[in-house]
Amino acid sequence: MEMEIARHSLAHVLAMAVRKLMPDVQLGIGPAIEHGFYYDFLLPEGATITAETLEEIGLQMQAFLKQDLPFERVELPLAEARKRLLEAGEGLKVELLDDLERAGETRVSLYRSGDFVDLCRGPHVPSTRHLLGVAFRLDRVSGAYWRGDERRPMLQRVYGLAHSSKKELKAYLNAREEAAKRDHRKLGKELGLYVTSAEVGKGLPLLTPRGATLRRVLERFVVDEELRRGYLHVHTPDLGRKLLYEISGHWQLYQESMYPTLDLGGVELCLRPMACPHHFMLYRSEPHSYRDLPLRYAEIVKQYRREQSGELSGLIRLMCFHLADAHIFCREDQVREEFLRVVDLVKYVMRCLGLQDVISYRASLHDHQRDKYVDNPVLWESAEKLLLEIAEEAELDCTIAPGEAAFYGPKIDVQIRNVLGKEDTIFTLQIDFALPERFDLGYIDAGGRTARPVVIHRSSIGCLERTIAFLIEHYAGAFPTWLAPVQARLMTITDASLDYAKRVEEQMLRAGIRCELDGRGDTIGKKKRDGRLQRIPYLVSIGAREEQEGTITVRNRDTKKQSVISPAAFEARLLEEVAGFSLELAADG
Amino acid sequence: MEMEIARHSLAHVLAMAVRKLMPDVQLGIGPAIEHGFYYDFLLPEGATITAETLEEIGLQMQAFLKQDLPFERVELPLAEARKRLLEAGEGLKVELLDDLERAGETRVSLYRSGDFVDLCRGPHVPSTRHLLGVAFRLDRVSGAYWRGDERRPMLQRVYGLAHSSKKELKAYLNAREEAAKRDHRKLGKELGLYVTSAEVGKGLPLLTPRGATLRRVLERFVVDEELRRGYLHVHTPDLGRKLLYEISGHWQLYQESMYPTLDLGGVELCLRPMACPHHFMLYRSEPHSYRDLPLRYAEIVKQYRREQSGELSGLIRLMCFHLADAHIFCREDQVREEFLRVVDLVKYVMRCLGLQDVISYRASLHDHQRDKYVDNPVLWESAEKLLLEIAEEAELDCTIAPGEAAFYGPKIDVQIRNVLGKEDTIFTLQIDFALPERFDLGYIDAGGRTARPVVIHRSSIGCLERTIAFLIEHYAGAFPTWLAPVQARLMTITDASLDYAKRVEEQMLRAGIRCELDGRGDTIGKKKRDGRLQRIPYLVSIGAREEQEGTITVRNRDTKKQSVISPAAFEARLLEEVAGFSLELAADG
Repeated sequence: MEMEIARHSLAHVLAMAVRKLMPDVQLGIGPAIEHGFYYDFLLPEGATITAETLEEIGLQMQAFLKQDLPFERVELPLAEARKRLLEAGEGLKVELLDDLERAGETRVSLYRSGDFVDLCRGPHVPSTRHLLGVAFRLDRVSGAYWRGDERRPMLQRVYGLAHSSKKELKAYLNAREEAAKRDHRKLGKELGLYVTSAEVGKGLPLLTPRGATLRRVLERFVVDEELRRGYLHVHTPDLGRKLLYEISGHWQLYQESMYPTLDLGGVELCLRPMACPHHFMLYRSEPHSYRDLPLRYAEIVKQYRREQSGELSGLIRLMCFHLADAHIFCREDQVREEFLRVVDLVKYVMRCLGLQDVISYRASLHDHQRDKYVDNPVLWESAEKLLLEIAEEAELDCTIAPGEAAFYGPKIDVQIRNVLGKEDTIFTLQIDFALPERFDLGYIDAGGRTARPVVIHRSSIGCLERTIAFLIEHYAGAFPTWLAPVQARLMTITDASLDYAKRVEEQMLRAGIRCELDGRGDTIGKKKRDGRLQRIPYLVSIGAREEQEGTITVRNRDTKKQSVISPAAFEARLLEEVAGFSLELAADG
Repeated sequence: MEMEIARHSLAHVLAMAVRKLMPDVQLGIGPAIEHGFYYDFLLPEGATITAETLEEIGLQMQAFLKQDLPFERVELPLAEARKRLLEAGEGLKVELLDDLERAGETRVSLYRSGDFVDLCRGPHVPSTRHLLGVAFRLDRVSGAYWRGDERRPMLQRVYGLAHSSKKELKAYLNAREEAAKRDHRKLGKELGLYVTSAEVGKGLPLLTPRGATLRRVLERFVVDEELRRGYLHVHTPDLGRKLLYEISGHWQLYQESMYPTLDLGGVELCLRPMACPHHFMLYRSEPHSYRDLPLRYAEIVKQYRREQSGELSGLIRLMCFHLADAHIFCREDQVREEFLRVVDLVKYVMRCLGLQDVISYRASLHDHQRDKYVDNPVLWESAEKLLLEIAEEAELDCTIAPGEAAFYGPKIDVQIRNVLGKEDTIFTLQIDFALPERFDLGYIDAGGRTARPVVIHRSSIGCLERTIAFLIEHYAGAFPTWLAPVQARLMTITDASLDYAKRVEEQMLRAGIRCELDGRGDTIGKKKRDGRLQRIPYLVSIGAREEQEGTITVRNRDTKKQSVISPAAFEARLLEEVAGFSLELAADG
C-alpha cells in the first residue's frame, strides 16, 4: 500500500471523526503530506480543539477503522454534486466546485464512507480496515486562513503523522526531536549568532559579533581557496540598470521574484537578483584572445530576491543573501576540464566543512516545455550529454531530474540532506550557452575569428547564510575549531589569577586564536556550564596551581578529556588543528 | 591686494574684451574662483571661441589693463538699472535683477569701466592698472547651461587663471599637470583597477581583479587591526524599514540624499544611508550592564547616498560606497579614553598607508542655527569642551570649523590634502549624545539604575573607494608592496625558461606573494616596459643563467637597483617588507 493513499484516507477518517464529534463543523481541504496528513475545519463559533479534543478525535478514528467502512467512489455531474454539498452545508467545498467548473470540469467524484461524503479525486484504500496496520497519531493543531487568504475565515488545521510501522513513526519522532534541538533558529539564538529586529524588518537578520566571525571565517576560507585555484575575485555593485536584466531575460521571466525598480532621475535601477550581467560587462570591458581563457571571475555577491513575507525564516529564506558566485568564461574545448575543476573545488570545500557525507548530486536537465527554456535543441542535447559525461567522470553518482534545468542550460545541483533526511539544493553548477550570445560575449580564436565563450555559473560553498544555517544544524552548534566563533574560553578559578589569565589571553590573541576571558566573580562550575552551553571547543581553567606552574588546564569539548599543558604548547596544537581544517579535535587537546 | 578682488576684476576685464571682439555677445555671470575666475557668455548664433580667439581676448585684456580704466561704482534704483540693462540687450542680467527684486532689493550697484557696464556687487580694484602685477592667463572654454538648468540656453564659460606672481602661477600649473598625471580616473584605467559600464549605470564602478585585490587588502588590514584593538565586527543588512530613519531623524533632515523607498507588500524599506540604526538595534537586542561597556561594533558598511548624476565621478562620488564604520557604546566616564583610542587607531592606519604627512584634523562645532542641530545647549557645551580637550591631548593641532558639526554632536574631521593642496574630509569622528536618547539605548549602572550610553561614531580608514582613489593619486599608482595588487611580475627572457619560471611562480604563490608570470613570446625589453607602466614593485627576469644558477634577477621599482638572488631569499625579504607595511622598498631588493 502506498503511504500517500493511506495518509489521504486517514485525512478522511479524521474529518469523519471531527464531524461526528462536532456536527456543525464545515470542511476545508484534507491532503496527504510528507510524514502524514492534515484536514482544515471551520469550527462552530466558540468551539476549539484542545489536546483533550485531539485525544477524543483519535479514539473516534480508531473506532471507525475497526468498523471497516468502505471508501465508495461516486461520480456525478457537477451540478448534482453542488446540490448535495449545499444541502450538507459545505459552503467551502462548494467554492472548490466553482473552481472546478471554471476550469471546465463537468463531472466530479465524491467519496462516501458510512454517512460521510467528501468531494475528492481519490484514490483511497478500499475500506478503513486497510488502515489498521498504519502507525498514526494526531500531532498538533494550528490556524490556517481559508485558501491562505488573510481576508478569509481562519480555519483550524489538524495535523496527523502516519508511517507504515510503529518503528518508522518512532524513528521519525526521534529525528524530529533531534532536528528541533538542532534548529538553527533555536541554536542561533542560544549561541548568540544572530538576532532579528522588527524595526529593521523581516528576513533581514543582524549577525552578532559571533555570527559575523563565523561568516568572515567562511568568506576568507572560500576566497583564499578560490584565489589559490586561479579564480580572479572582482567586486561589482549590487545595483544595475533594468536593461541588464532585460538583456539577460530575467526581467521577462523572473520579474515577480525581483525587487521593485528604483527610479533615480529617469534611470531605473534594480537591486540585482544575480551577478551574471555585471560579470559579463566586466568581461566585455576589454578584448579577449583564446590565449586568455579560461577567465574565472569570482565574487561574494549579495543577491536580492523577493520572498513572500510569510516564507521568510531564520537564515534560510531571506530578503537578501550572499552567494559565493563565479562565472568561468572558457572555450568549448575547455568546458570539460573547467567543470571537473569546479567539482573538485566543491568536493574539497565540502570535505573541509565536514559535510561530505550529507552531500549528493543531481543532474537537472530540460524537458520539452518549450517556453521554459532557451530554444536550441541541438545545443541542449550536446550540453546535457557533456554534463552527464562529466558527472560520470567525476563519480558524482547523480540522480536525474528532467525539467529542473536553468532556462539557459543544464546543471548539477548540489544537494544537502538534513537530520530528517530532507534534501535541499544548496547551490548549482551550470553550463550556459545562451547568455554569452544575449550579451554578445566574444573572443578572438586561434584563426583570428570572433568566437563565443561558454560560461559556467557555479558556487563553491553556496550562500553564506544558508551554509551557516546548515552547519549549525549539522554540528548542533558544536563547530569544528577552525570555524568556531570562539575557539577557547579562559576561565579564572578565583580573582587572584586574573592577571595571569589576562597575560595568557593576550598571548593567545597575538597568536591569532579566537579566545575570550570569563573573569567574572562566579564559581568555576558556573563558568564551565556556560562554556559547555556555548559549545566552545576548549574550556581553559586558570587558577593558583596553573599560575605557579605556568600552565593551563584545558578541557576538550568532544573527547571531554582534560589535560594540563603550557599555553605555548596548547596554542601550537590548536593552530595545527585549524590549519588542517580538522574536524575532530586533537584527542588529548 | 586680495586675490579674490583681483580675480573678480579680471573677470570684468575678460567680459569687456569679449564684448569688444564680439559686440553681440550677451553676458551671464563672472565670479572669482579658486586659482582664477570665469565668465559665461551667450554667443551670437554660429560664433565659437577657439584657442585663437582666446589668445586675441587675452591680448585685448592686456590692452585694457594698460589703458588704466577705472572701476566706477554706480548705485541706482532697481527699475533704473533694469532700463539700462534692457537697452544694452542684457536679457540674462535682467533675469538676475528680477531675482534681486523678488528678494526685496530696491537699489542695486553697477560697475562701469570705460563704456562697459556690469551688474555687480563689487568690490573691485580702483582701476585696471592695478591688475598689471597679477599673473593671469586664459585657460579653457567649456559649455555651461544658464543657471545650471539644461532646459535653458548653453553658454560658453571662459576660464582664466590668476595668481599674485608669475612664480605662483607657474607652481600652480606644474602642480596641476602633476595632479592630472595622478588623476585616479586616468591611472585607474591605465593600471586596470576599475571600469565603468553604461549598461550597469553611472557612479557604479566595477572593480577588476586588481582593483578588487587592492580593496580586499585594505579591508582585511583594517578589519584585522580593529579586531586586535577590541572592536567586535558585526554584519547587518543594507536594508531597513523607513521607521529606523524616522526615529534617527535622517528621514526628516536628509531625505533628499536618500534613495526612494522600496514598497514590499506594505513594508517600506530604505537602502541605508548609514548603519547607526542597525547597530543600535543590535545593541538593544540584549540588556547591558556598566561592566559590558565599552562595546565597539564595527562593520564594513555599504552606504547608499543619492547624488546628482552630473556629480558622479571616478571612485570619489558614487551611488554607493563602503565605509569602515564603527559605533562605540560607552559610559560618559569612558568617552575620553575611547576617543583617544580612536585617534590612535586613525594615526596608526594613516601611518601604515603612508598618508600621515597629508592628513590634518579639524574640529567641527555647532553654531547658533537652532534648526540645524539637536537643541540642548548644555550638552553641546560640555561635548565640545571635551572634544577640544581630547584634540589637545592627542596633539591633533586642529583648525576650528564652527557650523560644521553633525546635527547630533560635534566631530573631528580627518582632512586629506591632495597634490594641488586642496583639502577634503575623508571621514569623521563624532561624539553623539542625541541618538542614544532617540533610540532609547540604555545600560544598568553600578547603582542598578538605567543610564544612557554615549555613542562615538567613527571610521578608521574612511570609505574604501575614496581611500583607494586618494592612494592612487598619492602614490601616482606606485603602491607600496603590501598594497600593490601585483607585487612581483616574473618575465621569461626566452621561452626556454618557461618551465623554470612556472616553478618559481608556483613557489611564490604558495608563499602568499601576489605574483604573475609574463610568459609571452615578446622581448624582455617589451615585458619590462609593460611592467614599469604597471608600477609593479618588483620585476623579475628569468633566463638561462638564472635557471642554471637557481636564481632570479630582481629589479626594484623605486631604487631601480637590480640584483641576482635566490627565489627563497627574495620571498623572505618581500614578506618581511609586507609585514612591516614598509613604504620604502628594501634598498637592495
